[in-house]
Amino acid sequence: MDSGWPESLIRDVPDFPSPGIMFKDITPLLDDAEAFRWAADELADRFSNTPADRVVGVEARGFILGAAVAYRLGLGFVPVRKPGKLPYLTRSVDYELEYGTASLEAHNDAFSPGQRALIVDDVLATGGTAAATVELVNSGGAEVAGMGFLIELGFLDGREKIETDANCPVISLFCFGGDG
Amino acid sequence: MDSGWPESLIRDVPDFPSPGIMFKDITPLLDDAEAFRWAADELADRFSNTPADRVVGVEARGFILGAAVAYRLGLGFVPVRKPGKLPYLTRSVDYELEYGTASLEAHNDAFSPGQRALIVDDVLATGGTAAATVELVNSGGAEVAGMGFLIELGFLDGREKIETDANCPVISLFCFGGDG
Repeated sequence: MDSGWPESLIRDVPDFPSPGIMFKDITPLLDDAEAFRWAADELADRFSNTPADRVVGVEARGFILGAAVAYRLGLGFVPVRKPGKLPYLTRSVDYELEYGTASLEAHNDAFSPGQRALIVDDVLATGGTAAATVELVNSGGAEVAGMGFLIELGFLDGREKIETDANCPVISLFCFGGDG
Repeated sequence: MDSGWPESLIRDVPDFPSPGIMFKDITPLLDDAEAFRWAADELADRFSNTPADRVVGVEARGFILGAAVAYRLGLGFVPVRKPGKLPYLTRSVDYELEYGTASLEAHNDAFSPGQRALIVDDVLATGGTAAATVELVNSGGAEVAGMGFLIELGFLDGREKIETDANCPVISLFCFGGDG
């Protein structure tokens, strides 16, 4: 096992999804049985003392680690999805992108008062998606107990944004750029 | 625990995604910690004697149970995605829908000879998605060791199509309509 393991299984892909962006591709890490288990266990362990009753995963890559963390912690799993994908009645939250806006949805019976949710996603970048997910959890009356990310892009300062919004522990397993 | 558990946690949503379709909504089952664990364990247990080295999940709902099954079996996880979502070099397979065609992609280094993959998805309907996923696995030289679904819509005869294509065990936990 090399000394950079499992970070060495995160692959840099230049110019994706658009020119000038260096994309962190986690598929080699997910494909490695030992690394996949390590990532799920590590995220779960960091929240083992945080009372919570469900994991919220954000479409689509957030479903992968989110479901594994939920399984590991013995919790249920709630999907937050792009518009039009959830079949039942939904709540929707808009959030800003660099150019324009996007939306995320949750079923309107997904969150209720007294519940405590862990949000899990693969990457914390600007924090826009995470903040929108916090808003969906809160709009149902539930609380965010913590947020866990495989990767944090420290230079985008997403952590500041979401720590202010959610007032809960935010952890990431790998931080690229910035002080993280 | 009622006698219909956990099937009672699968919710019928009429007219989604289009008029006349009765959609099987699995989000109440996923949200129930005990039912989510049961579904992942049951799918994993059915394959505990099937040699395999990775789980393939199909975007997006297939990521949820696929990742939990991979975690439970101690395997890696490979995402099969809609066009343009995977960052690295990809292989693509087209498949027929009732009207028109759709495509699925896998990274072109995701599958190689000697590998044995379990395909996991939430619903087996006409089998078009499953057959396309089999083709992606095989195009890399890997074999499909088995296919597991939470729900089978027996009246759509998807099982016949994929058993012929893949020549491997196909299991489903719940079958609605047909002989399943």
